[in-house]
Amino acid sequence: MATVELEQPITGAPALSDRTIMKALVYHGPGKRGWEDKPRPAIQDPGDAIVRVTTTTICGTDLNILKGHLPVVTDGRILGHEGIGVVEQVGTGVSEFHVGDRVIISCITACLKCDFCKRGMYSHCRRGGWVLGCAIDGTQAEYVRIPHADGSLYRFPPGGDEEALVMLSDILPTGFECGVLNGQVKPGDTVAVVGAGPVGLAVLLTAQFYSPAAIFMIDMDAKRLAVAKAFGATTVIDSTDGHAAHHVMELTEGAGVDVAIEAVGIRATFDICQAIVAAGGRIANVGVHGKPVDLHLEKLWDRNISVTTRLVDTVTTPMLLRVVRSGKLQPRKLVSHRFAMGDIMKAYDTFGNAAKQGALKVILTNGPVE
Amino acid sequence: MATVELEQPITGAPALSDRTIMKALVYHGPGKRGWEDKPRPAIQDPGDAIVRVTTTTICGTDLNILKGHLPVVTDGRILGHEGIGVVEQVGTGVSEFHVGDRVIISCITACLKCDFCKRGMYSHCRRGGWVLGCAIDGTQAEYVRIPHADGSLYRFPPGGDEEALVMLSDILPTGFECGVLNGQVKPGDTVAVVGAGPVGLAVLLTAQFYSPAAIFMIDMDAKRLAVAKAFGATTVIDSTDGHAAHHVMELTEGAGVDVAIEAVGIRATFDICQAIVAAGGRIANVGVHGKPVDLHLEKLWDRNISVTTRLVDTVTTPMLLRVVRSGKLQPRKLVSHRFAMGDIMKAYDTFGNAAKQGALKVILTNGPVE
Amino acid sequence: MATVELEQPITGAPALSDRTIMKALVYHGPGKRGWEDKPRPAIQDPGDAIVRVTTTTICGTDLNILKGHLPVVTDGRILGHEGIGVVEQVGTGVSEFHVGDRVIISCITACLKCDFCKRGMYSHCRRGGWVLGCAIDGTQAEYVRIPHADGSLYRFPPGGDEEALVMLSDILPTGFECGVLNGQVKPGDTVAVVGAGPVGLAVLLTAQFYSPAAIFMIDMDAKRLAVAKAFGATTVIDSTDGHAAHHVMELTEGAGVDVAIEAVGIRATFDICQAIVAAGGRIANVGVHGKPVDLHLEKLWDRNISVTTRLVDTVTTPMLLRVVRSGKLQPRKLVSHRFAMGDIMKAYDTFGNAAKQGALKVILTNGPVE
Amino acid sequence: MATVELEQPITGAPALSDRTIMKALVYHGPGKRGWEDKPRPAIQDPGDAIVRVTTTTICGTDLNILKGHLPVVTDGRILGHEGIGVVEQVGTGVSEFHVGDRVIISCITACLKCDFCKRGMYSHCRRGGWVLGCAIDGTQAEYVRIPHADGSLYRFPPGGDEEALVMLSDILPTGFECGVLNGQVKPGDTVAVVGAGPVGLAVLLTAQFYSPAAIFMIDMDAKRLAVAKAFGATTVIDSTDGHAAHHVMELTEGAGVDVAIEAVGIRATFDICQAIVAAGGRIANVGVHGKPVDLHLEKLWDRNISVTTRLVDTVTTPMLLRVVRSGKLQPRKLVSHRFAMGDIMKAYDTFGNAAKQGALKVILTNGPVE
Repeated sequence: MATVELEQPITGAPALSDRTIMKALVYHGPGKRGWEDKPRPAIQDPGDAIVRVTTTTICGTDLNILKGHLPVVTDGRILGHEGIGVVEQVGTGVSEFHVGDRVIISCITACLKCDFCKRGMYSHCRRGGWVLGCAIDGTQAEYVRIPHADGSLYRFPPGGDEEALVMLSDILPTGFECGVLNGQVKPGDTVAVVGAGPVGLAVLLTAQFYSPAAIFMIDMDAKRLAVAKAFGATTVIDSTDGHAAHHVMELTEGAGVDVAIEAVGIRATFDICQAIVAAGGRIANVGVHGKPVDLHLEKLWDRNISVTTRLVDTVTTPMLLRVVRSGKLQPRKLVSHRFAMGDIMKAYDTFGNAAKQGALKVILTNGPVE
Repeated sequence: MATVELEQPITGAPALSDRTIMKALVYHGPGKRGWEDKPRPAIQDPGDAIVRVTTTTICGTDLNILKGHLPVVTDGRILGHEGIGVVEQVGTGVSEFHVGDRVIISCITACLKCDFCKRGMYSHCRRGGWVLGCAIDGTQAEYVRIPHADGSLYRFPPGGDEEALVMLSDILPTGFECGVLNGQVKPGDTVAVVGAGPVGLAVLLTAQFYSPAAIFMIDMDAKRLAVAKAFGATTVIDSTDGHAAHHVMELTEGAGVDVAIEAVGIRATFDICQAIVAAGGRIANVGVHGKPVDLHLEKLWDRNISVTTRLVDTVTTPMLLRVVRSGKLQPRKLVSHRFAMGDIMKAYDTFGNAAKQGALKVILTNGPVE
Repeated sequence: MATVELEQPITGAPALSDRTIMKALVYHGPGKRGWEDKPRPAIQDPGDAIVRVTTTTICGTDLNILKGHLPVVTDGRILGHEGIGVVEQVGTGVSEFHVGDRVIISCITACLKCDFCKRGMYSHCRRGGWVLGCAIDGTQAEYVRIPHADGSLYRFPPGGDEEALVMLSDILPTGFECGVLNGQVKPGDTVAVVGAGPVGLAVLLTAQFYSPAAIFMIDMDAKRLAVAKAFGATTVIDSTDGHAAHHVMELTEGAGVDVAIEAVGIRATFDICQAIVAAGGRIANVGVHGKPVDLHLEKLWDRNISVTTRLVDTVTTPMLLRVVRSGKLQPRKLVSHRFAMGDIMKAYDTFGNAAKQGALKVILTNGPVE
Repeated sequence: MATVELEQPITGAPALSDRTIMKALVYHGPGKRGWEDKPRPAIQDPGDAIVRVTTTTICGTDLNILKGHLPVVTDGRILGHEGIGVVEQVGTGVSEFHVGDRVIISCITACLKCDFCKRGMYSHCRRGGWVLGCAIDGTQAEYVRIPHADGSLYRFPPGGDEEALVMLSDILPTGFECGVLNGQVKPGDTVAVVGAGPVGLAVLLTAQFYSPAAIFMIDMDAKRLAVAKAFGATTVIDSTDGHAAHHVMELTEGAGVDVAIEAVGIRATFDICQAIVAAGGRIANVGVHGKPVDLHLEKLWDRNISVTTRLVDTVTTPMLLRVVRSGKLQPRKLVSHRFAMGDIMKAYDTFGNAAKQGALKVILTNGPVE
C-alpha cells in the first residue's frame, strides 16, 4: 500500500521522492472515479509548491462533481480541495514556505496580487479562487501542486492535530465566512441554521464564537439533529413535517430570527429562511444552488433585511487557527469516519451515503490510520 | 378658497382655529378621491401634535393607494405622508415642540420607546411606522394629527425653503437610506440606478454625497434621463431596447457595478440589477414590489453579493437637513410643478400622468403659489 | 428594621405606601454618610416613575463621591445608581411600565428624544445621562424617583435573579461597552485587561462573548487575580514588580496585544496599555481619570492604533439581558458579600476596604438576606 | 544636464540604459545634501523592479530627515519616496508589471504576503513599509529600485497627468487614510483640520468625498488659509491669536466638531483637537510627532471619543485613482512650484522656506519643465 511506503520506505526500493508515479482519486465523468496511478506533479511556475498530502477529506462538492454537475471538471481530474501535508519542493518565487514545512492547504488559491486578492476576496482571485480539484488537480492524492503557494498555504502549528486542522481547508472558513460573518451573528442573537450537514454544523460551531442566545438547527435527519444538539444547538427542529418555519415562529413568539443561515442549496430551505427572518434580520446563503429561487420581495421589500451570498475567501483562516489553538473550537468533532488513503473508494461510498452511514467528515490519511 | 382664508382671515369671520371643519383629499376606494370637508383633527393622546399643513406633495405610493393596491387604506382616509407645517396644538407629553414651531413632518411615525425605535428602525415602530395617510389620516389636508410628535417631527430651520425641505419627509431619506446607505456607496464606486423616477433621482442626488466615480441611470423615459443627466448622472442608459444590462457590462468592461439600486419595483428591473452586479457588489432594493422575483442563486451563490430591502426609517433626517443647509444638496431640483392646495385634484391628474406631463414632485401649498 | 416592615407589614401599622418617610444612604460632604430618614420621592414630571428598591449595590464611583472628588454631588444627596425594584407609581407620560412591574434601573437616564439619545449616546442625554445618585437622589434607599422612566428602566424577566441582574444597572454594560465594544474584541484576539477590580472583571466576563484566544488580566492584588483566573482569564500577571508590560511583550513574542483595556484610571495603568498595544491594536479606556496622562505619540503616531473613551450608554442592556437569560453569562459570580439594606453603613465599610475584605460587588437587599 | 540627456540622448553617446551612473539627491548627515553621481540601481531580488523616475516631489518628511530627526537614515542615502516613472527592468518574480509600463510609485513597500499585508496594513509590512528614501535609496534620482514591485507600484492610467498623480504616492493617501477614513468623516459632519500645509490640504480635498457640512481649516499662515478657502474650506481660522479652539467652539455653538484632524505634529495643535472635539467625536492624528503630548483623560474619559494614529497604508490608492480619473478630485491644485530634476537643490531651498515662498508641493521632472 502506497501509504505504507510513504512513511516506511522499504530499503532498496526507490525513495518516494524519486518516484514519478503516485496514487490519486481520479474523476472520469459522471458517476465514475478511480484510485489510480498518475504522474507526480512538478513545479510549473515560480510561485508553485509541491505538497505531500498526509491528510485529506471529502467535501459535498466532490459528490456534486461526481454527479456531473460541474462541467468545468473534466475527465482525468484529480479531485479534492482540502488537505494537510508537507512541503516537498518550492518554486523560486515562494518566500513564506520551505521544504519540510507542514502546511494546511486552503481550498482557495490566492495570488495576493490581483485586485480581488487585495480586497480580501480571494474567492475571486483572477489567477486562482477555487481551482483545486476542479480546474486543476487536487488533494486526494499522494502529492499535489499548489500554485501561488504563499497565498494558498498556511503554516501547520507545532503540536497541531491534523484531523482537526484539515477542517480549516474549507468547511470551517466556509461556515464561518459565508454563514456567521455574512449573517453578522452577535451576542444575544437568535440564529437558525437550515441544514445540519457538515457545513451547517460548521456554521453551528463557529456561530458560538459570538455567543448568540439561541441557535435553532433545522434538518430532516434525526441523527444529524442529535449531533447538532451535542454541538451546542439550543433547539433542534425536525423539518420532516414541512412546518419548520411555523415552529420557529412559535419559538420566537412571532418575531422570527435575527439570522437565518441556508446551508443546503435548494428552494425549500431558502423559503424557510425567508419565512423566519425577523424585520431587520439577515439571510446568509451558504448552500450551493443549481436553480433560481423565489425572492418574496412582495413581503420582504419593507422588512429591512439583507440576503448575502459568498464563496469562501479563507481570509479568516489565521483567525480560525488562533481560535482552534486556544481550545475554544474543536473541529475534530466533525470527524465521523477514518480511512487510509488507499481506501478512498470505500470512503467515498460511506460519505456518499451520509444519511445511512451517519457520516459527517471522513478523514483520509496517507499512513496507518490511528 | 381655504388657503386664502388661512393666510388672510377676514375680520369678523371665525378665526381658523375656531373652525371645526377643514378641507382634505379623501380616498373613497379604488380610483375615487375628493377634495372634501372633514372634521379638523384633535389631540387624542398626550404625545400628539396638531400641525397646520403649509406645504405638502404627492408620492407614488399615493397613486398605488388610489389603484386599490393597499387594502389597509380604507374609504374615508385622508391621504398624504409628506409635509411642512406649523404646530397648532400639542399634547401634554410633547416636549420637543411648541405651538408656533415650524416643522418637517416625517412620513414615519416613531414612538422612540419600543425595541425597534431604540435600534433605529423607526420603520417598524410598534406604535407607528408608516401610518400617515395609510392607517391614519394624512397630510393632504389643512391640518393633520401627528402621533408621537417628538419622534415624528423635525424642526424646520430658520430661513429654510419649504419646497426643498418637504423632500425630507420621505423621498430623500428613502433614496438615501434604502438605496445609498444600504448599497454602501463609496468614493470611486460605480453605481447603477435602475429607475429615474422621483425616488431614483433622490438616490442619484444623495449617492453623490460619497463621490462615486460613475453613476449610470437607467430608464425608458428620455425626459427623465435628461433630468438625471442634469442631476449628475455620469451616463444615462435608455432601457427601451431591453439591453440595459448588456450596455452596463460593456461600459464596465465586463466587471459590472459595485452597487445596483432598484428603484422601480418590478421583476424586470430587479433582473437588470442581478445581471449587472459585480462580484463583491451590493443590490439595494428601493422599489415597492407586489410580486415575488426570481433570485438567481444558481449564478449568484458564489458572487459574494448582498441584496437588501428597507422601508425608510428616516433616522438620517437630521444628517440630511445638515447637508441641505450646507448647500451640498438642493432638493428643490426635484420640483416640477406647483399648485395651490385647493387644486390638489388637478395636481393628482398631473402627477398621475407623470411621463406625459414630465412630472417629478408636485408641490401643494396652503397659500398663494409663489 | 424597615426592610422587614416592607415585606411583612404588621397589621395595624400604616402600610408602606402611606408612609412619607423612608430610609436612605445620604452623603454629607467628604467622608460623611448616614443611613437616615428622608422624604419618600414623589412624581415630579409626567415621565417619572417611583420605584421601590428591592436590591441595590455600591459602585467604586460612590467611594469617589465620598472622597469629595465629584463637586457636583452636594450635601444631602442620596447615593446609588444601581438597582432592581418594583414600580410603585408612574407619571401620565410613562407608557412602557406599569405599577407592579419589576424593573432593572439603569445607571443612565435617557429621555430618548434628544439628539444624543437618538444617536444611541444616552450617556450624553441632554436631560439625563448619569444623574442618579449624583445630580439627583439615587437608589441606595427604599424608594427612588426615576425620571424619563421609559428610557431608563428595563423589564426584569420572569424568573430572573436579582443579584445577577443588578449587575446590568452599570457594571456589565460599562465593561462591555467601554471595554469590549470600544476595544472591538474579535474571535482569536489577544486581549489584556489592566485592573482586575469589579469593572475589569466585568470586561473579562463580557470579552468572552467574542471568543478571544487569550485574555491577560493584570493587577497587583493576588486575590483578584485568582478570581480573574477562575472567571476565564487565560493568564494573570501580577504587576507589583512594575514589569507587567515586559511580561506581556514576552508572552506575545514581542507582538503586543490586539486590545488593551484600561480599567483603573491612573497614569501608570494607561502607560502599560500604551506599552503593550500591538500595531493596529486598540486601547479602550474604561477607568475614571482625575488627571491627564502622557500619550506617547512619538512612538504611537505610526502604529495605526486607536484610543477610545466612553461613559457607558447602557444601550446594550437588552442584548446583555438576552445573553444572561441564555446562561452564557453569569453575573452573580461578581457578588462577594451580601447585606440587608439596613446594614448599608457596614456594607460601605466592607466595600471601602475591598482589598482587605476580598470584596467585589456587595449586594444590599430590602428584605431578609437569603 | 542629465535630464536633457535622458529625454534626448545624443547620437553616439552611450544610451541611458547602458550607463551605470546616475544623478541623485544624497543625504550626508544633518543639514547636508548633494545632487551627485551614484551607481544606477540593479535588480537584487526576484520581486524588484527598476523604475526610471520621470516625476518626483519633496515631502515634509524629507526636511525632517535633513534636520537629522530620523537616525535610521544614514549618510549616503538617496532621499525621496514619491514618484512617477517607467519600468526599466523587472525581476523574475514580478507578474503585474512589465518593462515600459508607466507606474505610480507608492511611498509604502508591500510584500503582500506577510500577516500585516494580508490585513491591509502595508505600513507595517514585515519586509517593507516605509523604506524608500529612508532605509533604502529613494526616488529623488534618475532611477530607483522598488522591492516587492507587485505590491508597491500602481499602473499609471492612460492619459493621466503626472503632476496630479504623483500626489498619489503619499500625500493624498496619507490625508485620506490617516485623516478622513480614521476620522470617519460622514455627510453632514463638522470637521476641523488643524494645519493647512500640504498634508492638511490633502485632508481638506479628500474629506470632501464625504460631503461634510462644514470644514474649518486652522493655521497661522494667512497664505495657506487663503489656499484652503479656495480648496473648499467653509471657514478658515487664523490661530495666531492662540484662540483657535475658542473660535471653533463659538462657531459650533459650544458643540465642538465631529472630527478634529491633527496635521502638524506638535503638542499645541493636538491640544486644539482635544479642546474642540465634540462628545462622540473623533480625533485623527496625521502629524508626525517627536514628543509625547498630554491626553486630557480627566476631561475626555466620559466623552465617548476616539483618538487614532496611522502611518499611511496606501491601500486606498486604487480608490483614489478612480476618484481622480472621474474628475472629482484634482490633486494638481497642490502643486505650487515646478523644477527640472537637475535643479532639485534649488527646489529644496524653496520647499524648505515654504511659508516665505508660498510653497505647497514642488514638482521635479526628469525632462524639460513644461
